[in-house]
Amino acid sequence: MKIAVDAMGGDYAPKEIVEGVELARDAYPDIEFLLFGLTDQIQKYLKNDTRIDVKQADEVIEMGDEPVKAVRSKKHSSMVLAATAVKEGQADAFFSAGNTGAILASGLFIIGRIKGIDRPGLATTLPVVSTDTDQKNFVMLDVGANADTKVLNMYQYALLGKYYAANVMNVANPKIGLLNNGTEADKGDMDHRKVHDLLAADQDLQFIGNVESRELLNGAADVVVTDGFTGNAVLKSIEGTALSMLHLIKGSILSGGMTSKLGAAMLKGTFGEIAKSMDYSQYGGAVLMGVKAPVVKTHGSTKAPTVKNTIGQIKQMIDSKLIPDLNDYLTGHADQLQEIKETIKNGK
Amino acid sequence: MKIAVDAMGGDYAPKEIVEGVELARDAYPDIEFLLFGLTDQIQKYLKNDTRIDVKQADEVIEMGDEPVKAVRSKKHSSMVLAATAVKEGQADAFFSAGNTGAILASGLFIIGRIKGIDRPGLATTLPVVSTDTDQKNFVMLDVGANADTKVLNMYQYALLGKYYAANVMNVANPKIGLLNNGTEADKGDMDHRKVHDLLAADQDLQFIGNVESRELLNGAADVVVTDGFTGNAVLKSIEGTALSMLHLIKGSILSGGMTSKLGAAMLKGTFGEIAKSMDYSQYGGAVLMGVKAPVVKTHGSTKAPTVKNTIGQIKQMIDSKLIPDLNDYLTGHADQLQEIKETIKNGK
Repeated sequence: MKIAVDAMGGDYAPKEIVEGVELARDAYPDIEFLLFGLTDQIQKYLKNDTRIDVKQADEVIEMGDEPVKAVRSKKHSSMVLAATAVKEGQADAFFSAGNTGAILASGLFIIGRIKGIDRPGLATTLPVVSTDTDQKNFVMLDVGANADTKVLNMYQYALLGKYYAANVMNVANPKIGLLNNGTEADKGDMDHRKVHDLLAADQDLQFIGNVESRELLNGAADVVVTDGFTGNAVLKSIEGTALSMLHLIKGSILSGGMTSKLGAAMLKGTFGEIAKSMDYSQYGGAVLMGVKAPVVKTHGSTKAPTVKNTIGQIKQMIDSKLIPDLNDYLTGHADQLQEIKETIKNGK
Repeated sequence: MKIAVDAMGGDYAPKEIVEGVELARDAYPDIEFLLFGLTDQIQKYLKNDTRIDVKQADEVIEMGDEPVKAVRSKKHSSMVLAATAVKEGQADAFFSAGNTGAILASGLFIIGRIKGIDRPGLATTLPVVSTDTDQKNFVMLDVGANADTKVLNMYQYALLGKYYAANVMNVANPKIGLLNNGTEADKGDMDHRKVHDLLAADQDLQFIGNVESRELLNGAADVVVTDGFTGNAVLKSIEGTALSMLHLIKGSILSGGMTSKLGAAMLKGTFGEIAKSMDYSQYGGAVLMGVKAPVVKTHGSTKAPTVKNTIGQIKQMIDSKLIPDLNDYLTGHADQLQEIKETIKNGK
């Protein structure tokens, strides 16, 4: 398999991206890479080019660029060239740590939607921290690809999430929950109520009903379906609260005198474990689900080990035939999906 | 001043409610209470009825009751009678730890909206945990009174939040932020963009633009304006994440051997401080803003000390003339507010 990598995306690019790709190359003997970027900069960090084909890109899409405009105008950027390589079949998947909006636009406009999916959704894996369950993580989507999410989109996110959980997280029959402001079936605004009823009526899905954001980290569901606006806000408040708690502990220890500092030293292992549990970069990047190939992004602050983990996640997506399986389902159920579309359109 | 209390609402009612009211009565010599509920049950816990007038209510609205239906049919319930006492001018404010939906319905249908406010919003105070700022807390609304929030409602939440911050939190010119999925002015769905522009155009408000949920606990704004669906999800994910982190720490310590347990004992003070910082019951209850009198609810699991704190918060609302000040503003700016309404209606 071959992965197209945008070597110039991210705060520490190209250094950490190049180093991460080398780590991944050494870990996974069956992966080849197309590495797009400013060749002279890449060569500074590349130690060994075995299975790494460096491709010159004359431009870079910056973090502050207006996404859609940048993808349309910077035709020779590392990101656009990497996406184009996937579109043209020269690579099987796309990776970047760059401008999120531009990654979404590259996936949507260059690589393109899978037939049957109206709007791709961004999926993130988050840890389950409760010890009352064997469940280790869950996938939530959309976490921000779309600010204006419609009923049909949320219904389709459930299908996308199901295949992600089954193929990548190895959950045979994933529990699917709808993020809502209460667990009762009639909770939420009109749109969420309609989505609830559509999901409940679909015999192919193990829909467990509405879930509340309070219970997500306790393992409320394997797949959490949400509109992109709420999903984005919830993801960022989980991140923000976890970070605030760690800062609070640190600040309290530093101002707490000798006993407190000694106690903290004794608990160093514990704090390390917790930081690791909450560090979801270990679960890889966020995946744009619903496009024709794996399109995966990580935080701008990504360093080499996360790049390597994310490449591993992409390998799993390719090995498990995620996209072909999803495609088969969508093709096989085209009539049923069309019917659902009509139902929503007619406002039933 | 006189406060009407629903003695039967909450998981530990009437015991903890009655005990909390006695604590508040002892702490605040200028408050009198009307305590509604099953008289014989209340009397079991009431030690001293100074300034506490116990009123018989034959019914109780249960946690599982359908809110609007319960408020309409259980005319002799402690909650409905307490709200009616406020409506009829026998009391200045309403308190309950009962069924949230029924409290909202009692506020809206019995006590009634302030002229100029189309839909009341539920406001919660949350702590700022960052040590880089003097800001101690912020108020966020709506956190769940409305699942379907419109542009006009969000604009009005900013006015309600401003008066809450100024009068109750003593912030002279509160910074108002709009919760959105990015800080740039053009972020969010259509509705949030419109709200952004309305708030930016209002010279009476210190609007600081969009804020992201990741930054809330760092003190992004004094007043965080949000639609009720997103606000509810964000509030619950902050709660859930904070609780999960504490469980994670506890679990890790318990499984960590003797050094770890000793370390934890040395850090007991630190953990206590953190639990206290994140325990927002110390900031009182959630306030239904936009109705004619203070309507305040707390968690169903409320115990006596929280009841006392919440009564203190209600006293502050009355002492600071929150509702009259808000009323004056709305009356004085009726033309301007009407104009905004027309603008939204005409889709500009």
